[in-house]
Amino acid sequence: MGKAERTKEFIIAKTAPLFNQKGYAGTSLTDMTDATGLTKGSIYGNFADKDDVAVAAFDHSMEKLIEQVRELQGGSRSARSKLEAFISVYRNGLQSAVLTAGCPIVNLGTEADDTHPRLKEKVTAALARWHKSISAIIHQGKAQGEFREDSNAVEFASLMIAMIEGGFTLTKISGDRSYLDQSLDQLEQVMKVRLIK
Amino acid sequence: MGKAERTKEFIIAKTAPLFNQKGYAGTSLTDMTDATGLTKGSIYGNFADKDDVAVAAFDHSMEKLIEQVRELQGGSRSARSKLEAFISVYRNGLQSAVLTAGCPIVNLGTEADDTHPRLKEKVTAALARWHKSISAIIHQGKAQGEFREDSNAVEFASLMIAMIEGGFTLTKISGDRSYLDQSLDQLEQVMKVRLIK
Repeated sequence: MGKAERTKEFIIAKTAPLFNQKGYAGTSLTDMTDATGLTKGSIYGNFADKDDVAVAAFDHSMEKLIEQVRELQGGSRSARSKLEAFISVYRNGLQSAVLTAGCPIVNLGTEADDTHPRLKEKVTAALARWHKSISAIIHQGKAQGEFREDSNAVEFASLMIAMIEGGFTLTKISGDRSYLDQSLDQLEQVMKVRLIK
Repeated sequence: MGKAERTKEFIIAKTAPLFNQKGYAGTSLTDMTDATGLTKGSIYGNFADKDDVAVAAFDHSMEKLIEQVRELQGGSRSARSKLEAFISVYRNGLQSAVLTAGCPIVNLGTEADDTHPRLKEKVTAALARWHKSISAIIHQGKAQGEFREDSNAVEFASLMIAMIEGGFTLTKISGDRSYLDQSLDQLEQVMKVRLIK
């Protein structure tokens, strides 16, 4: 990695938590120079504009999140364990650096959906990838005889993401853990009924 | 209502959809003067600052939302119908003026939780009121022999709000109805199992 690449990576790593915490509109150039210790010129020497930094910051946060899930999944062959890794990452999300200010999908999604097509597009693509990844795990679980043959992968993926994000978002907003705990406990129940043989 | 009160109400009604759509940080004074056709002086003659407008706008949106639920609940004595009114308002939320840009609780909550204590406090109070209102309906359902005696009102209220907001928020962000439909269909199933006698 050359010096320019390293500076770029440094800016992304330092601003990603900032964008997730303060939002796109709420993050100023001053916030970015404060967080990085770099000048305005240095930041805009590496990125075309604030959008460019925000897009890279979102990608960075999503990579960190996916890394956490992969780490928990380990090399497990069990489809159920793979699904439970998502639940576990959000169950402990407030203690994790990447989720401590909320899930980037919901934080950026709620801000960008009516105002910022480029960022909205990033968020919907990330959401679609997550959805596809859950579907694929369910198909794998069916193929290896772990999950019921009549389980609907696409429907379950939507339900699972909705329950994770709903519980996590309300607990993050209110500080009341019951939203997250009730939602994830119920999701595990539903998983047993609808997926497990 | 005096003229000053009327102007104030007019500003609130015109800026509430704006704040919900563009967010607190994303709504500029120019947006407010454009939406109202009033001058900067007229707006800040009626409100101390942007926070004051944002707080009044949030209260206004929540009142509209509660009105919609009440209208659907009508005079029904059935606790189940009363709970289903909440589900129905969000199921059709994208077609309703107050929810078309997303739920104000999640929109403002995700933005304010790490940055703006006064607005965060408004959101958590609104969420707590909603939670209490669901709990009270469940207690009523138990008292009138409609709901199971062993149902847990507080836990179910948390689950219900998490499932409604999770499904609605992801459908709003992505345009994909499956999050909302899967989450609300499942919630109705869970309601049957956990509440209905």
